[in-house]
Amino acid sequence: MNSTYPLLDLVSYPDDLKKIPKEKLPQFCNELRQYVIEVISKHPGHFAATLGVVELTVALHYVYNTPYDQIVWDVGHQAYAHKILTGRKEMFNTLRNLHGLSPFPNRDESVYDAFTVGHASTSISSALGLAVAASQLGHADQHVIAVIGDGSMTGGMAFEALNNAGIQRSDLLVILNDNHIAIDQNRGALNDYLLDITTSRTYNRIKKEVWDTLGKFERLGPRARSFISMVESGIKQSVMKRSNLFEGMGFRYFGPIDGHDVTHLADVLTELRNIRGPKLLHVLTTKGKGYKFAEENQTEWHATSVAFDIETGQKAPTPKPQGPKYQDVFGITVTELAQENPDIVGVTPAMPTGCSLNIMAEKFPDRVFDVGIAEEHAVTFSAGMAAQGLLPYCNIYSTFMQRAYDQIIHDVCIPRLHVVLCLDRAGLVGADGVTHQGAFDISYLRHIPNLVVAAPMNEIELRNMLYTAQHAKCPFAIRYPRGNGHNSDWQKPFEEIEIGRGRMVADGEKVAIISIGTIGYEVTKAIGLLSGRGIRPAHYDMRFVKPLDEGLMHCILAKFDKIVTVEDNALQGGFGSALLEFCADNGYYPKIKRLGIPDRFIEHGTPQDLYKLCGYDAEAIAEAVEKLTYQISREAIK
Amino acid sequence: MNSTYPLLDLVSYPDDLKKIPKEKLPQFCNELRQYVIEVISKHPGHFAATLGVVELTVALHYVYNTPYDQIVWDVGHQAYAHKILTGRKEMFNTLRNLHGLSPFPNRDESVYDAFTVGHASTSISSALGLAVAASQLGHADQHVIAVIGDGSMTGGMAFEALNNAGIQRSDLLVILNDNHIAIDQNRGALNDYLLDITTSRTYNRIKKEVWDTLGKFERLGPRARSFISMVESGIKQSVMKRSNLFEGMGFRYFGPIDGHDVTHLADVLTELRNIRGPKLLHVLTTKGKGYKFAEENQTEWHATSVAFDIETGQKAPTPKPQGPKYQDVFGITVTELAQENPDIVGVTPAMPTGCSLNIMAEKFPDRVFDVGIAEEHAVTFSAGMAAQGLLPYCNIYSTFMQRAYDQIIHDVCIPRLHVVLCLDRAGLVGADGVTHQGAFDISYLRHIPNLVVAAPMNEIELRNMLYTAQHAKCPFAIRYPRGNGHNSDWQKPFEEIEIGRGRMVADGEKVAIISIGTIGYEVTKAIGLLSGRGIRPAHYDMRFVKPLDEGLMHCILAKFDKIVTVEDNALQGGFGSALLEFCADNGYYPKIKRLGIPDRFIEHGTPQDLYKLCGYDAEAIAEAVEKLTYQISREAIK
Repeated sequence: MNSTYPLLDLVSYPDDLKKIPKEKLPQFCNELRQYVIEVISKHPGHFAATLGVVELTVALHYVYNTPYDQIVWDVGHQAYAHKILTGRKEMFNTLRNLHGLSPFPNRDESVYDAFTVGHASTSISSALGLAVAASQLGHADQHVIAVIGDGSMTGGMAFEALNNAGIQRSDLLVILNDNHIAIDQNRGALNDYLLDITTSRTYNRIKKEVWDTLGKFERLGPRARSFISMVESGIKQSVMKRSNLFEGMGFRYFGPIDGHDVTHLADVLTELRNIRGPKLLHVLTTKGKGYKFAEENQTEWHATSVAFDIETGQKAPTPKPQGPKYQDVFGITVTELAQENPDIVGVTPAMPTGCSLNIMAEKFPDRVFDVGIAEEHAVTFSAGMAAQGLLPYCNIYSTFMQRAYDQIIHDVCIPRLHVVLCLDRAGLVGADGVTHQGAFDISYLRHIPNLVVAAPMNEIELRNMLYTAQHAKCPFAIRYPRGNGHNSDWQKPFEEIEIGRGRMVADGEKVAIISIGTIGYEVTKAIGLLSGRGIRPAHYDMRFVKPLDEGLMHCILAKFDKIVTVEDNALQGGFGSALLEFCADNGYYPKIKRLGIPDRFIEHGTPQDLYKLCGYDAEAIAEAVEKLTYQISREAIK
Repeated sequence: MNSTYPLLDLVSYPDDLKKIPKEKLPQFCNELRQYVIEVISKHPGHFAATLGVVELTVALHYVYNTPYDQIVWDVGHQAYAHKILTGRKEMFNTLRNLHGLSPFPNRDESVYDAFTVGHASTSISSALGLAVAASQLGHADQHVIAVIGDGSMTGGMAFEALNNAGIQRSDLLVILNDNHIAIDQNRGALNDYLLDITTSRTYNRIKKEVWDTLGKFERLGPRARSFISMVESGIKQSVMKRSNLFEGMGFRYFGPIDGHDVTHLADVLTELRNIRGPKLLHVLTTKGKGYKFAEENQTEWHATSVAFDIETGQKAPTPKPQGPKYQDVFGITVTELAQENPDIVGVTPAMPTGCSLNIMAEKFPDRVFDVGIAEEHAVTFSAGMAAQGLLPYCNIYSTFMQRAYDQIIHDVCIPRLHVVLCLDRAGLVGADGVTHQGAFDISYLRHIPNLVVAAPMNEIELRNMLYTAQHAKCPFAIRYPRGNGHNSDWQKPFEEIEIGRGRMVADGEKVAIISIGTIGYEVTKAIGLLSGRGIRPAHYDMRFVKPLDEGLMHCILAKFDKIVTVEDNALQGGFGSALLEFCADNGYYPKIKRLGIPDRFIEHGTPQDLYKLCGYDAEAIAEAVEKLTYQISREAIK
């Protein structure tokens, strides 16, 4: 029987790939691309980015001596082909599942993954580190390559790394994978610039001006023609090179070249392998290449969340969720608020679709700012607008807000500027795994003075919290999770929430469960489980990590000396710790069992898997309550 | 009697300045410069940076309608002349004192301070925010100016801001204050680039190549000469502009111009005021301008810490400190370690003198990397080197390490790379004030998995901790303060410290004081005070925030039910909270009084003033112990 993948079947590792004759590489790429499409059509994951770099991936492993030579993939959602070629073909269908392959390159998974990635713009820094170390260690023949998209290139640390690499003598190749799109369309001057040099607009403009000058000398006759052609070529040689931004930063610039011509790519890389020092190869690719539907709608096909039919692009039906996506609650609500309040503006670092700020952008295009992959700038830019009296809602995923931690302190909270920081994807995010968990935001925000830190328990609360935030007159952070809520009927009239006021969700006895955020839903489920066991704990939803509702805390502690705290955040310095601090400062000595993310990094899996793994799914909460309920109180012992 | 400052005497606010005839501005600048020199010679502070921008400051306030027009100073240590011209001349000698003028521009201090600053590279982001808001709010006549040094321009967020500003139509002027120095000499490709465009090297190189081409056509005769001159001017016009990095980023580029010609500066700014859209003015200045000693040694005169004689530059003698600077303990020790361990490398983001890594750089120039003002890159670059087996000691001030919070998580701790993060200036730093306090590092590091967090109590412990860190095989953070220690005899043979092992400093009874870091010295003083009052608490120095010495904690809690914790860090989520978590998790219920930085931003003052203000100087510690000692224990009441 003929295999669908006669060449791919021969390749498990780069050494196998190197045995394929160069002229067969295009066919190999086709097979590899089909394999990616086939597997992802059944096992959802990042999709379009890998399709765009199939040829580049093959050329790199064909030319370079991996894993001795080191390839660093920026972000890493484009590295599926790389995984397939480096010993992980058979396991490829376990990608993103609990205990399956990582969604991104990971040093713990494979020696071919030169660096663990997930966040954008890190690759040039880490690759420079690898390259400098190679020369320090005397590995003169070790090559280091960073592959970075034009979207990631807008991140500040990529520029910091270029600035540093440009003065090092290390042998570093940066491959700029230029497809003019990140998840959404790229925005920014660099994007325009790359389009400009790609289409040679700068060159053409210069040429035109020189020609205009030369035009006056046409009467010079036939010799002038050859002269003009010489001048033109001189300009092309020197001007084009020297006018290049990357040359300005000390890199030798090569390209742009077609990123889908695998043999040409292999030839170019072979040449570049012998050129020392920092160099940049500009490669033009099409995100979603080779799969029509993905090419046509690159944002939609950035990642898939369900199986799809390869022929029709039709996605598998999903069970209708109970409630809306939290991101849509944000997007729809902030649009409603903006309608009423002309001071409201929206800011996103390259995630308008991901955070649903595109909903507001459609209605108020001049009031939504997509600033590129640039979390630091996003927050300080928001602070600048707030200083003039605008009211920015700055939306950044919890894990990426880590990038703006200093800016939150320095530019928002020290001057007490009224910026609403919206942290989407807070808590455990699931399949995106270790680099993307929003595990730390309560801990990294809670100690910042002047900041309100809120975490609503459901869609209605989120909606009202977004409404409330506009009246706060101080920095205001709201965290909420990835995924869907549970209330189809959430779009109710706005109600203001008193800042720092928690609420009782369910009255009860013996044990109080105090939760923060949407993980309160697991508490509700736990109470359901416990009622069947004759146990009836109370449930309080604090709503605010900061300021803490001290009045409510006094009431709770007057009634209960057994407390379970539940949070979708690290236990160290988190919400439970805030309650411990309150108790210590106010002379309360209850038994407190804190449930939350333990002191280790959490891998990929479904959120439900991970809640269980971390010990705060409904069953684990119920168990903790049950155990405390039957524990004899300390006072009784004495 | 003639005043020394006849013109300056007339000026308290920019409106007064505008009444001075333009031709007298040079004299005015001289007076202003002299005034700065005179005051700083008696009241130490940042020095050379302000001297470099006297003319620029005067020209800006002369031309622009401040405070309606908004000037954002990057970092802000160059803004003393700005403070003097904006209503703060009389208070200028209170600068950096407790309750005196802020060391940096501060929105709470003056309406002329358009933005609160202190950290580098924020100005373009915040100024863009101000400018975008101006246009959103219909303030078509409101101008926004960011003044940023070439050092700050290497920070990633400055690039993020340029990238975003280049596509906005907002009226933003960025003034690049180019003096080729930050605190130390600038390093990086951008620095080379600026030197290149300043000296027109690129242009000359291009011209030479075109001339070489043209040379072959000399036989064209006299008409060719005028032709060549036309080509040259065409090249100059178009090439020079288009080859410019900032033009590439969508800015109109003007300059470079002399930053010490105040009337020309005023003329240029007047012209630029009428040009819309993003534009960059490249101004060349000399740091320390007009004070010989500062011009000659710019790094030394970046800031003064004692009074000096204006004529001789002679600095006032200071009482010999008891012990070395902590930064020197780091610098000297890491150099010793590097001597023995060839894998050790040093990394600093533009602070070799500030952190004393220059000591290692002198001995091992190839093993110390000054990466520019680029904290994010510094950490990830270190991680890259560690991935190849080198052992980087990456030194960043605690407050600036906030910039690299995400990189510590994502690039160092997830892959468990052996990077030694050295946090200088941890805790309250004193006169640099609110933006520079190292108030949060224990809180922002403690929840990161895989990370050891250490804080030695004195120089000998710091030395041994740096020694120990090299054997850890995991990410390792060490925090230590600004200023001097107390042990002149600190350079003792290395002793390994068991990771996670605390120690008893003094045995005692009734109350245990548990401290972390050098604030333990205040505890020692407190115990001295208490001994006169017949109270003898025990003192434990935990050395490690993480991992916590659980064995020692069990011992302490078996013996004591009254605990005072002391830390030079925020109380929220800090060291004391770690102990609360331990107690809650292990069923201990002691009375715990936590001393540390309260939940507000702390202004400038001497560290000793600030410890007192925050309630953890020796006297406050003694009081807390005394109060607990005489408190009847809870058990006794029942």
